[in-house]
Amino acid sequence: MTLTNVGILIFDGVEVLDFCGPFEVFSLAIKPGMDTYPDNALYKVHTVAETADSIRTVGGMEVVPTCTIDDHPEFEIIVVPGGFGTRAIYQERPRVIEWIARQAAADVLTTSVCTGAALLAKAGVLAGKRSTTHWASIGRLRELHPETTVLDDLRVVDEGKVITSAGVSAGIDMALHLVARFAGVDRAREVRRAIQYDPHPPV
Amino acid sequence: MTLTNVGILIFDGVEVLDFCGPFEVFSLAIKPGMDTYPDNALYKVHTVAETADSIRTVGGMEVVPTCTIDDHPEFEIIVVPGGFGTRAIYQERPRVIEWIARQAAADVLTTSVCTGAALLAKAGVLAGKRSTTHWASIGRLRELHPETTVLDDLRVVDEGKVITSAGVSAGIDMALHLVARFAGVDRAREVRRAIQYDPHPPV
Repeated sequence: MTLTNVGILIFDGVEVLDFCGPFEVFSLAIKPGMDTYPDNALYKVHTVAETADSIRTVGGMEVVPTCTIDDHPEFEIIVVPGGFGTRAIYQERPRVIEWIARQAAADVLTTSVCTGAALLAKAGVLAGKRSTTHWASIGRLRELHPETTVLDDLRVVDEGKVITSAGVSAGIDMALHLVARFAGVDRAREVRRAIQYDPHPPV
Repeated sequence: MTLTNVGILIFDGVEVLDFCGPFEVFSLAIKPGMDTYPDNALYKVHTVAETADSIRTVGGMEVVPTCTIDDHPEFEIIVVPGGFGTRAIYQERPRVIEWIARQAAADVLTTSVCTGAALLAKAGVLAGKRSTTHWASIGRLRELHPETTVLDDLRVVDEGKVITSAGVSAGIDMALHLVARFAGVDRAREVRRAIQYDPHPPV
């Protein structure tokens, strides 16, 4: 079992939990029978931005990317999160859209959380596939991208080499699904237990 | 209704979701009847570190703090997250422990996620109070700090000016609880809906 490189896209106006949920899940997954994290990690998680400059999330957290879309290790998985910043990328950042398209064309497992689905659609990755997005953006994605069948009743839509998930916290579920798919349900359950993800929302 | 300053402590080896869960919830809470986030935010969320240097989370995310323990706005709420890095703070960073103690003494609502509870205990904040922590650290906290009654069956323990929560993802629940307590259940439900926190863990 080799270390899997995961690249999580970050950008100004990225939604914090969209990218931190998957970051958390992947970074805690460890090899079977081992409990000496981080030496036995299954995944190496990278944050990837258009440039090396730090970015500001929704709410103002400042994050320095660990690599750029022009200079990064070969990824097995990329995660495209959502947030208000996706609009600027959709409209004005063709280099980022092209990067997503290149990853998908190179057979990298291409995933999105929340409104990150719009960026996958723009990159042509969702054509002919089922997908999902944040509940408030379902209508918009259907309107702009009739070439994808947008589902509104699943938190995670797995189309093999392309996986999309619903809003914000659903990224946690998607990453657990991926750990289960590639490393087995037992590994995913260990992560779920490690992050005490047995949620009982208080409201 | 005035903007509430929330200070979230970050440090090398902080667990990502421990601090990003509350960051997400607080940063999305908005004033009643408004939908033009972020102009109508209820909370201004700050990341606070011992120094102005960037920190590395568990898994290697690099975050630049927006302020330091020596220079920050007056907080109404502080959040102390957990992670492997808490051990170094517990043992070797008295300035951070003293900062937590000063905040609590100044009547700042003092909260923890996961193993951040150990730092609150070290700062003397949990004496005579009920508390909780990550399930794997319950025994250790009881052993080191018999002056607090550590509960093992709640995700959030609210003792008025001191609130502790269970492991990692429980910080989301704690922050929702706080939004409900201070801004009303309707506001908290809006946030829950915005982050689509209706989780059905896939494993």
